[in-house]
Amino acid sequence: MPTEGEIISRIKARARGSRRVLVGIGDDAAVARLEAGSDLIACCDLLVEDVHFRAGWAAPMLLGHKALAVTLSDVAAMGAVARFAMVSVAFPPSTGSEFVDDLFRGIVDLADQCDVSIIGGDTSSSPGPLFLDISVIGECRQGQAVTRGGAKAGDIIYVTGNLGASALGLSLLEAGHRLGDETTDARSEARARALLKHLSPEPRSKMGQAIGEAGLATAMIDISDGLSTDLWHVLEESGCGAVIRAASIPIAECAMTLSAGDSGSDPLSLALHGGEEYELLFTSRPNSEGELVELSNSLGVAITPIGNIMIGTGLQLELDDRAEQVVPGGYEHRTDRS
Amino acid sequence: MPTEGEIISRIKARARGSRRVLVGIGDDAAVARLEAGSDLIACCDLLVEDVHFRAGWAAPMLLGHKALAVTLSDVAAMGAVARFAMVSVAFPPSTGSEFVDDLFRGIVDLADQCDVSIIGGDTSSSPGPLFLDISVIGECRQGQAVTRGGAKAGDIIYVTGNLGASALGLSLLEAGHRLGDETTDARSEARARALLKHLSPEPRSKMGQAIGEAGLATAMIDISDGLSTDLWHVLEESGCGAVIRAASIPIAECAMTLSAGDSGSDPLSLALHGGEEYELLFTSRPNSEGELVELSNSLGVAITPIGNIMIGTGLQLELDDRAEQVVPGGYEHRTDRS
Repeated sequence: MPTEGEIISRIKARARGSRRVLVGIGDDAAVARLEAGSDLIACCDLLVEDVHFRAGWAAPMLLGHKALAVTLSDVAAMGAVARFAMVSVAFPPSTGSEFVDDLFRGIVDLADQCDVSIIGGDTSSSPGPLFLDISVIGECRQGQAVTRGGAKAGDIIYVTGNLGASALGLSLLEAGHRLGDETTDARSEARARALLKHLSPEPRSKMGQAIGEAGLATAMIDISDGLSTDLWHVLEESGCGAVIRAASIPIAECAMTLSAGDSGSDPLSLALHGGEEYELLFTSRPNSEGELVELSNSLGVAITPIGNIMIGTGLQLELDDRAEQVVPGGYEHRTDRS
Repeated sequence: MPTEGEIISRIKARARGSRRVLVGIGDDAAVARLEAGSDLIACCDLLVEDVHFRAGWAAPMLLGHKALAVTLSDVAAMGAVARFAMVSVAFPPSTGSEFVDDLFRGIVDLADQCDVSIIGGDTSSSPGPLFLDISVIGECRQGQAVTRGGAKAGDIIYVTGNLGASALGLSLLEAGHRLGDETTDARSEARARALLKHLSPEPRSKMGQAIGEAGLATAMIDISDGLSTDLWHVLEESGCGAVIRAASIPIAECAMTLSAGDSGSDPLSLALHGGEEYELLFTSRPNSEGELVELSNSLGVAITPIGNIMIGTGLQLELDDRAEQVVPGGYEHRTDRS
């Protein structure tokens, strides 16, 4: 098990410099610089072994990737750009050097890809499970951050990408499937895609930042608890209601493939209530549609209008033949589940 | 065990607003504003049960206080002012609401006292120990951060407060003493003071900030690993050596009291090598002495010159009758100790 000094040296060696970082890892604190006229964006996410993930589910590199990805997703959901990250990890005593290196490789590779500098952190042993807490600091132009609270009646509701694969991936992991299982047919390929979406989500960093900079969203959130729950958060904070069309919700193809011939899985329900998608859910004035489509094309990120913000309260789902009231069906992270 | 939603609501209700915080707890990320022309300061500290503390050692309020204090101390050591904090906690399933409330009270009370806004965090259950990671974001005028690397031959080495009590407090805790033990005589009062210094350190926030703003330090660090180790860090980063006088090192009175008649404890050794003091160790040009004394008087924080920075390498300790080479005798936080 490497010492803290060894771990710090390795991260320091791997962490890329940046003109924004004046003092990086190794002093009492990091010193960094935001652009003049920026607001600071800050958030953190905690991953605990056997609560948020299991050790055998994936390589440590994917765990590192995901730990940073979920926090970058929060910054994207503010319409901001992530700049700096700090990584705190407590390792069980049995952890080997290779595990530590792989975990940090997953973090640093994604950080490099997103032009985020690792500027600090802390490490410790853990007498129990692995703990991983990543803080990210970002920025946006003053007053330009996109909150959950700005949706207005008449706004169109959009989601990026497609939904349902991550929750499906989680249930596959729980059933014993793993990334790297042989893919021999359409069903096994669909399983691999679902597993990858759950284990290695890609934050919508560029899309979120671009939407924020162009002022195209009235409200935005990332889908971590599930579309129904996260849309509910937007409605509550914005003081309005919404109607969404079931037929418009973009369902991940792998969820469709795997549901064929499996009466137990309902792709719409996965897409509506499944968590950990890390897609963006945002609302926009109808006259922004053209600009959004252009942005979507230029960044290669699909966006789909799924409904509208309404006066009132509550969330209504339009199905082929009827309309239903939807209650948040994603999960609240409970501190007592384990 | 409260849910994450309940915990967030309570912290939100307790967290004080600030003109610097545009969006606080409850959105995807916080939005805050630093002063124009500031550099951003960021650091985090991790406390893990049974590694950094034991559950029965102190009330959860003190644990919360200490978790924030040690991170504020890092910001002070940069000569900066702390503005914002994020708190990530994983609670064992048996944790009661009262424990959660007390822990956060300790954090929030110190935050209020230091004018620091709690702007975010994350909570989870823990299948193992309690895990607490606090990130702090601060600021200083551009280019004014005080690193470990600026000491120059001829500089005077200072420490704030006095040393040795925290390490003594730790050994008393390990021997079964607790805060709240009856204090009936000088020795039991000394024990209480040592325990308090270890369990409830006060970060030198105002002093650090004032030293930084006045540009009075060439290098600064907080004493978390012990005077010898932390001075060593300064010497390594600054590329120089130092001589310190044993007779000048300010030793905590409680360490002197308890060593009387106890051949096993050596107050000088405690002061020289004991960690977790959270006093500031800094170097300063000789012509800054007058200003430093004024600052010390106006803030009521003692500062003591203990030696000088020299050309060369290594750390020499002058005793009454001889000089010794000192090697770092504080401890390195090892990830494999538990």
